[in-house]
Amino acid sequence: MNNFSFQVPTTIHFGEGQIRKLASSLKVYGKNVLLTYGGGSIKRSGLYDTILDELKNDFNIFELGGVEPNPRIETVVKGAEMCRTHDIDVVLAVGGGSTIDCAKGIAAARFYDGNPWDFTSNSRLVTKALPIVTILTIAATGSEMNGGSVLTNLETKEKLSFHSRHVIPKVSILDPTYTYSVPSYQTMAGSADILSHLFENYFNKTPDTMVQDGIAEGLMRTVYHYTPIALKNPEDYGARSNLMWASSMALNGLTGSGKAGIWSCHGIEHELSAYYDITHGIGLAIITPRWLQHILSDKTADKISQFGHRVFDLTLDANRMTTAQETIRIVYETFVSWGVPMTLGEVGIDDSLLEEMAVQAITHKPLNTETYVSLSKDDVHEILKMSLTEMNF
Amino acid sequence: MNNFSFQVPTTIHFGEGQIRKLASSLKVYGKNVLLTYGGGSIKRSGLYDTILDELKNDFNIFELGGVEPNPRIETVVKGAEMCRTHDIDVVLAVGGGSTIDCAKGIAAARFYDGNPWDFTSNSRLVTKALPIVTILTIAATGSEMNGGSVLTNLETKEKLSFHSRHVIPKVSILDPTYTYSVPSYQTMAGSADILSHLFENYFNKTPDTMVQDGIAEGLMRTVYHYTPIALKNPEDYGARSNLMWASSMALNGLTGSGKAGIWSCHGIEHELSAYYDITHGIGLAIITPRWLQHILSDKTADKISQFGHRVFDLTLDANRMTTAQETIRIVYETFVSWGVPMTLGEVGIDDSLLEEMAVQAITHKPLNTETYVSLSKDDVHEILKMSLTEMNF
Repeated sequence: MNNFSFQVPTTIHFGEGQIRKLASSLKVYGKNVLLTYGGGSIKRSGLYDTILDELKNDFNIFELGGVEPNPRIETVVKGAEMCRTHDIDVVLAVGGGSTIDCAKGIAAARFYDGNPWDFTSNSRLVTKALPIVTILTIAATGSEMNGGSVLTNLETKEKLSFHSRHVIPKVSILDPTYTYSVPSYQTMAGSADILSHLFENYFNKTPDTMVQDGIAEGLMRTVYHYTPIALKNPEDYGARSNLMWASSMALNGLTGSGKAGIWSCHGIEHELSAYYDITHGIGLAIITPRWLQHILSDKTADKISQFGHRVFDLTLDANRMTTAQETIRIVYETFVSWGVPMTLGEVGIDDSLLEEMAVQAITHKPLNTETYVSLSKDDVHEILKMSLTEMNF
Repeated sequence: MNNFSFQVPTTIHFGEGQIRKLASSLKVYGKNVLLTYGGGSIKRSGLYDTILDELKNDFNIFELGGVEPNPRIETVVKGAEMCRTHDIDVVLAVGGGSTIDCAKGIAAARFYDGNPWDFTSNSRLVTKALPIVTILTIAATGSEMNGGSVLTNLETKEKLSFHSRHVIPKVSILDPTYTYSVPSYQTMAGSADILSHLFENYFNKTPDTMVQDGIAEGLMRTVYHYTPIALKNPEDYGARSNLMWASSMALNGLTGSGKAGIWSCHGIEHELSAYYDITHGIGLAIITPRWLQHILSDKTADKISQFGHRVFDLTLDANRMTTAQETIRIVYETFVSWGVPMTLGEVGIDDSLLEEMAVQAITHKPLNTETYVSLSKDDVHEILKMSLTEMNF
C-alpha cells in the first residue's frame, strides 16, 4: 500500500425525503444561489418545483439550465460570469455527474481570471471555489462525493478532467426515489460507469491493497446484483438505494487511495465521448471487456480470476487463464443481458477515426507508462478495432 | 436501507513518515497542545521523542500520560482541568483507542460544567469540544475516524459510551510502522475488535444493505488474511498497513450507516471489562462465537452462512444450518489459532458474577429489543456461562 492522504468532507444526507435538509444546508453559505441543472428532466419529475418551494422564502435563486450531458467549457464560463454578476454565495447542482462536474468548473472559475479550460492541464490553478451543494438524480459518476470534474471542449475535440479538494461538494442529498425516473439506457450506463471506476482502481499494480480491493469487490457485487432489478422495476427502493450509495463509494477515494498509476479505459473512452458525444457509461461498457481481453496474459490472469471468483462466484480453476477468460465472458455477456449496445457501430461510430482517437488517447494520458498494463497507440487502436464487432467466446 | 446522514470529516495522513504533517496539522488550531498518551510505550519506541522534536519550536506542550487501557472518568476530569488551566487549543492523542477515547472526553469536558460521566447517558450534553488530532499506534477501535468514546467508571463498575460529531478527530496520522512494536496479545486483541465492529454491523435486520455488507465482507477477509502474518512477522508493512486502514474503515460509518438497531456482543463485553478490567478485544473474541452459537437458528442461518461463504470461502451447503455451523467453528478456531485465550477462566473471570453482569448488560443496553436477535437477561447469562468452557464442534 502506498502513502496517501484521505479527505472526504462531504456531508451526505441519504434517503427518501432528505430534501428537507436542503435549506439548512445552503443557508450556512449565504442567500444567493446559482441553481444548475441539465435538460429539464427535473422539471418533468416535479423535483424543480419541490426545490423552489423549499427555497422560495429565504434565498435568491439564479438559474443555469441546459447543462449538457458532456458539459461544455462554454457553459462553465457562462456560469462563472453569472456568479460574478449576481454575487453568488453557493452553487446548487441538481442532476447527475455532468451537472455536478459543470458546477465544479463554475465554482472554481468564479475566482479565476483566465480560461477555465486551463484547469484541465493544471489542477493547481484552482486555488479557491464557491461552496457546492448537490442533489443527485442518477447513480453513476460519484461526482457528488469527490473533487473531480470532467469537461468537454468540442472545438478541440477534447474531454479532460481536473481535480481539486476545493470543489468537493459540501453537502450532497441522495434520495434514491429521484432515480426512479431514470430511463433504462441511463440506468445501465450509470451502472457501467460505477463498475468502471471500480475496475480501474482494482486492476492496479500496487501490492498489498486488500482493504481497497475487498471494498471494491463488495461494491461490484452490489452493482451486478441490483442493476437488473432496477431495470426490471425502476421503482425498487432497495435496488435504487444500493446503486446510489455504491456510486458515491466507488469514487470517493476508498478504492483508489494508496494505489499508484492511472486508469486505462477512461482514457480511451474520453476520446469516444469527445469525438462522438456518446454516453460515457456506454462507451466504458463497450471498451472494458475488449481491454480485459487484450491485456489477458499469465501476468494478469491471477487478478482477473480473483475478480471472477469474488464477484461472480467462479471457482478458481487450477489454470487461472481459464477462470480469467470465463470472467471476461461474464463481464461482456452481463452488459449484453442488460441491453447495453456493445459495439461501436450501435452508438454511431465507424472505423474512420479510430487511429486518430488512439493517438489522442496516448497524447492526453500516459497510457503507455503508468497503467495496469502499459498500452501503446497500437494497443489502443487494436482495442478500438475490437470494439467494432461482437465478442465471441 | 434506512435513511442516514454520513459525515467523516477526518483528514487521514496514511503511511510511513506522515509524522512530518503533524506540526502543520496542529498549528491551524493554536500553540497550546495537550499531549495525551498511555502507559509509556511511546517513550520506549522513540515516538515520544520524535513528536517533541517535531513540535518543540512552535508549540507549548502540556502532558497527560498514563491514560488507562480502559480510560477512567477521573482521567477525563483531570485532563479537562488541565485544558482550562493552560488554555489548551488542541488535544493531541498519541496511542490507541483508549487514549483517543479519553482525549474525546477531555475535549468535550473542557466546555462542560458538570460531571462528564453525564455524557454517557446523554450525548447531547456535548455541544462543543476542543479540536483533536491523533497519532495512532494500534489497529483496533477505529476511534481515530469517528465520534465515539468509551469511558469507564470503576466506582460504579460501568463502561459506557458517548457519541458526538464534535469529537471526531480533525486529523489522524496513521503510520503502520508505529504498530510494529505492538505485542502479539494486543495485536490479536486489536484484530478481534476490528472484526467485532464488522460482525456487529453485519448481523443486522435492516434489509437491502448490500453496499454496507459487501464492504464489511471485504474488510473481514482482510483482517483474517493479515492478522496471522502480523503475528508471525510484526514488521510486515503490508500486514500492518492493511490492519490499520481496516480498523478505521470498520467503524467510521461505512458498514453501519443505513442500518437500525444496536449491537449485541459489545454490550455484553463492556460488562466484563467494567467488572474485571480485561482487554476489550479479548473479551469480544471470547463472547462472539458463543453468541453466534446461541442465536443460530433457521432465521439466522442464511446470514451466518453468507458470512462463511464470503469470508471463509465456504461452499453454500443446501442445508444452510450446516454451513452456518461450520462458519461458527471457523470463527472460534481462528481465534484459538492466533493464540487468543478463549475461555473466561483464562482471563481471570469465574462464575461468581455472571448473573449480575447479565442483569447490568440488559440494564445498560436494550439487548432484549433492538439487537439482531433479541437477548433476555437469561440469554446473556447463558452466553456468559458458555464462555466458561471450550467450545467443541
